Amino acid sequence: MKNRLTLIKIGGNVIDHEAQLEQFLGDFSSFSGFKILIHGGGKTATKLAADLNHQAVLVDGRRITDQKTLDIVTMVYAGLINKNLVAKLQKQGCNAIGLSGADGNFIRAVKRPVNEIDYGYVGDIENDSVDAVGLTALMNAGFIPVFSAITHDGDGQLLNTNADTIAASLAVALSASFETRLVYCFEKKGVLADINDDSSLVAEIREAQFLPLQASGVIAGGMIPKLHNAFQAINQGVKEVIIGQASDLAQIDSGTFGTTILK
Amino acid sequence: MKNRLTLIKIGGNVIDHEAQLEQFLGDFSSFSGFKILIHGGGKTATKLAADLNHQAVLVDGRRITDQKTLDIVTMVYAGLINKNLVAKLQKQGCNAIGLSGADGNFIRAVKRPVNEIDYGYVGDIENDSVDAVGLTALMNAGFIPVFSAITHDGDGQLLNTNADTIAASLAVALSASFETRLVYCFEKKGVLADINDDSSLVAEIREAQFLPLQASGVIAGGMIPKLHNAFQAINQGVKEVIIGQASDLAQIDSGTFGTTILK
Repeated sequence: MKNRLTLIKIGGNVIDHEAQLEQFLGDFSSFSGFKILIHGGGKTATKLAADLNHQAVLVDGRRITDQKTLDIVTMVYAGLINKNLVAKLQKQGCNAIGLSGADGNFIRAVKRPVNEIDYGYVGDIENDSVDAVGLTALMNAGFIPVFSAITHDGDGQLLNTNADTIAASLAVALSASFETRLVYCFEKKGVLADINDDSSLVAEIREAQFLPLQASGVIAGGMIPKLHNAFQAINQGVKEVIIGQASDLAQIDSGTFGTTILK
Repeated sequence: MKNRLTLIKIGGNVIDHEAQLEQFLGDFSSFSGFKILIHGGGKTATKLAADLNHQAVLVDGRRITDQKTLDIVTMVYAGLINKNLVAKLQKQGCNAIGLSGADGNFIRAVKRPVNEIDYGYVGDIENDSVDAVGLTALMNAGFIPVFSAITHDGDGQLLNTNADTIAASLAVALSASFETRLVYCFEKKGVLADINDDSSLVAEIREAQFLPLQASGVIAGGMIPKLHNAFQAINQGVKEVIIGQASDLAQIDSGTFGTTILK
């Protein structure tokens, strides 16, 4: 039987709120079994860019990662946020080790090809991008990986990479040797039958229900690409994907946490 | 027989010069056996502080690490410099993993006690600060540690720590299970009999020669504390300490590199 591995992605809505972050890290630490934390950026990088008078570069409304922006996100994501998360987890007795995709060559990406737009130093993750063997060795040695959203191209170049995609890619790659559960923490309790009613949580969605739920309007807006990604992960070997609120994480093993996406 | 472990510390004089850094990382990568890289900061942190209009806080002429300075060095040392070094080493086929002392709880420090001066978030390393067992497990799993000069106190607080001291503490702690060789790269070829003559390199110094060499003026100025630290490491189990120039590193196994400090 495969060991269970839980991968949890948190974003700015957790990172930027001290009390929520504290609670989340306590819940994460007390979690049994193999686990990986993946974090996004929050507002700090935007604030640092503003403090440095660095204007975000936009082309056709799309954000570009120029050299200066890459330096800023590397400093903030892989430095400030990552190391503070690790120090806080160590305080809780969780043997965290902070990583970028360059460390251990765990996640190799390719600079996004230039078609209409040159996005700059943005990394896209390919199917064979993750070194699942090395990462498993690290976890077997007793370390809990904490990934920032920075990868590299294997040729000396760091790349800014979407944290949701990193989480999914890790989950897919590690599914060969683990029973993987991928958790996306976001600002809502999960998929809600009535967007204004937190008690209307949809507990489970299977792929066959996706189109009917979309047609009826229960799944709408930003939830559509999230669920697309979730089903993509499920179809590549991930056992389950859960979308929920970080503050409810302690309930995950009781089955009352978030919306579970199943095959 | 113990395996040999080489620990190499580089400072700003290597980090801030692209061509020198490139050469050094190539030499480091082609080095056989267990190895650890420890790096200081260079000018980037000073430049970032200036760009952010953050004045260095001085008390009685001593530099203080306030919260903002800690954030800056965490971003630059553990983020920007560390991850770029790792990406460049990976390009060379060296399976580097970038670390702070918080990662894996490898180096725990104590905030420097306040006597006359409160140095702020500065960490002092104690004798039992290094987790040699965890670090050995990491190296045995095939990873090459690359340490930035940031540690933590185990209670959630990051601390700014001297990179020379980190290198010596790692070397001492790992001497129990490795034959350790500690290399400090600095701006001179080593201890020179004539400070103006690079060909007057003193190949070896034993502790008994230290005071006579100091009396004769061969060892003077900033070299005195360096050698004090070196003998301290030697007396705590480190096999040899070498002080030399990064550009000569390829010669290390021929015995013509730098000044070797022996018991």
